Amino acid sequence: MTVLSPPRSRPALIEAFTAPKGFGDQTLRDRRVDAIELLGGIPDPSVLPTAELAEATARVLARPGASSLQYSRTEGIPGLREWIAAREGVDVARVLVTNGGFHGLALAVQAVLERGDLVAVDNPVFPLFLRGLELADARVLPIRVGAEGLDIDELAARLREGARPAAVYTVPEFHNPSQSSLPTARRRELVALAEKYGFVVFADDPYRELRFRGEPESLTPFHDSDHVIHVNTFTKTLGPGLRLGWIVLPPRLVPDAVALRSRQDSHSSTFVQAVIAELLTSDAELFDRVLGRARALYRSRAHALADALEAEAPGAFEVTVPDGGLFLWPRVNDDAIDADRLAADASAEGVEYQRGAFFPSGPGTDADRHLRLAYGDTDEERLREAARRLGRAVARQR
Amino acid sequence: MTVLSPPRSRPALIEAFTAPKGFGDQTLRDRRVDAIELLGGIPDPSVLPTAELAEATARVLARPGASSLQYSRTEGIPGLREWIAAREGVDVARVLVTNGGFHGLALAVQAVLERGDLVAVDNPVFPLFLRGLELADARVLPIRVGAEGLDIDELAARLREGARPAAVYTVPEFHNPSQSSLPTARRRELVALAEKYGFVVFADDPYRELRFRGEPESLTPFHDSDHVIHVNTFTKTLGPGLRLGWIVLPPRLVPDAVALRSRQDSHSSTFVQAVIAELLTSDAELFDRVLGRARALYRSRAHALADALEAEAPGAFEVTVPDGGLFLWPRVNDDAIDADRLAADASAEGVEYQRGAFFPSGPGTDADRHLRLAYGDTDEERLREAARRLGRAVARQR
Repeated sequence: MTVLSPPRSRPALIEAFTAPKGFGDQTLRDRRVDAIELLGGIPDPSVLPTAELAEATARVLARPGASSLQYSRTEGIPGLREWIAAREGVDVARVLVTNGGFHGLALAVQAVLERGDLVAVDNPVFPLFLRGLELADARVLPIRVGAEGLDIDELAARLREGARPAAVYTVPEFHNPSQSSLPTARRRELVALAEKYGFVVFADDPYRELRFRGEPESLTPFHDSDHVIHVNTFTKTLGPGLRLGWIVLPPRLVPDAVALRSRQDSHSSTFVQAVIAELLTSDAELFDRVLGRARALYRSRAHALADALEAEAPGAFEVTVPDGGLFLWPRVNDDAIDADRLAADASAEGVEYQRGAFFPSGPGTDADRHLRLAYGDTDEERLREAARRLGRAVARQR
Repeated sequence: MTVLSPPRSRPALIEAFTAPKGFGDQTLRDRRVDAIELLGGIPDPSVLPTAELAEATARVLARPGASSLQYSRTEGIPGLREWIAAREGVDVARVLVTNGGFHGLALAVQAVLERGDLVAVDNPVFPLFLRGLELADARVLPIRVGAEGLDIDELAARLREGARPAAVYTVPEFHNPSQSSLPTARRRELVALAEKYGFVVFADDPYRELRFRGEPESLTPFHDSDHVIHVNTFTKTLGPGLRLGWIVLPPRLVPDAVALRSRQDSHSSTFVQAVIAELLTSDAELFDRVLGRARALYRSRAHALADALEAEAPGAFEVTVPDGGLFLWPRVNDDAIDADRLAADASAEGVEYQRGAFFPSGPGTDADRHLRLAYGDTDEERLREAARRLGRAVARQR
């Protein structure tokens, strides 16, 4: 048969995607059964409210008319949006329910960025966000993350020098991977820069509810600005598999985000929304009870892993136990130890983690000297065994 | 404060969206309680397996490790993909689980089309697809739909004249709104044109399983071609609120669609997928039992509404009872009756439907002389009452 048209090239949208490397598609998905995996920010099944979810589902499905199985609004179902709005302290009209935190970021990227725009991002950075940015073929301006989160002074300097990002991406609380948090005063400075230079802050906040020490930083600077999209999710608290999250938008951006969403997948599952709304509203204390159990577990695991690292590889790592979240970010102290070889040796010993070299968004960090160790879904005995294996991997180079 | 940058314009992606009109955002979402609404292709709650869903959910959540609450692969969970692949008769690697049929269309649009591409579409057409096309700012080439579905001869003529669409969109079985189906032989001709001219067929098939008379047309021409994306969903069979569907892709397009999906919302809810996989595989006859009940109900309602229309407004409409699906598409016989006024009068009498004028994608149809009456979720007594109200609306012009 004669083909009358030349083969079409792929759309520019698709052409801009690069193959995943390092922290790629599969790291969170396929499990290696013979190894202890400290790879992903995965909540422990023991602190997910499975029985309560089953009961909430039964109640929701028993309602006459089974509205949970029917179409619903793009913005989300009222009961869930109202719960979220109350918890965030914002007007319900600003809440858009999403299919999880990453989806919220993807919607922000697509609703705000023109193709080829410049976006300032954490350095080091949550690598999957850079893949999300490929939806807008965006250029990246790395901004250092220090002990107080995104370095606002460096950002201000780059802006003064003439950089004009369309957006700034940061994880403001328990930064992924480095675990620092952006203080409230710095949040105000960030927002002031956003309003002065006209960019939008994408504040990616999945770990906020997992604080197990100290007080959370304020969200008010974010919520009071019309230059911030606050991205959150039930992923780390009720389970990634729900694929349920939300974004708080400035009112001026709501219509565009809703218009985009309505053209992509209409709305998040009414069924999942109704089950979670029932779970959260039928027992007003349930969510905080779930969080209480989770925080205690993760605090205990964080300390267990930090202690075991020091016991099994004395002096090898500089470890700061974070105030919350799901990761340790130890630094290899000994300059003689090659971090890539360490990761390979650790894998051979039967422990898998994300090497720090996967996380820089540009030069100028020591991320490649770090290890990101996820402790959320591994019990203390296995964390200690993981530390022993890591200790043996360290010993191979000592 | 000095704002140092001019206000940014909206991204071109968003700028291409037009405000919904006619068959818009809200028609399927907000219900008018004082009227009988025959608006959307909504399955009846009585034929959705609510009790079985609650039981399947309880079993899934009771599994050790609660994997249904964890991350899963972009393509979908194995158990569900395998069930779909077996039912479609295709290799499992070609199945991508989606958040419902519309999402499948949106993924096809974004994965295949370059911005500004020409797309041949049904005329009349499912109007929401045109909104989905705005994701690619596509231009539309309307192709008439007749008693045998999309008019392949007209399409061939346009291609010979030089039209070079990148894709052709059609609802091949129980066309929405006109209810005709594309015969198997015509499917082969369509696929041959796709392969000759290099376009991709988007075959949107949500009503296929709701056939209540006669034999379905063959899917083989679609599945045997590497120029077809077959889009389907559990929306009309197990409930729109699940937001769960799938696309069957030609192998050459799988990597691009998965790469796109992984950057937008990662994957469909593992929870919903696991519940539906459990529902479908724990009882191999359940799905066909659900379909059997649904088909009997919709056949009965289709006839009840058609009979009542003739009884309440004798001779006013030409009604063909379809062989399946959820809609009647009666034509107003009497040229003296103004169809827009009829819809307004019907609304005043307390019956809402989609007027045919919402459906043309171009000139040359008599769609504006039709009414789209959805009978899926309205019982026979209320269908007869709706017909009485429509009869009174007709009488206002007679």
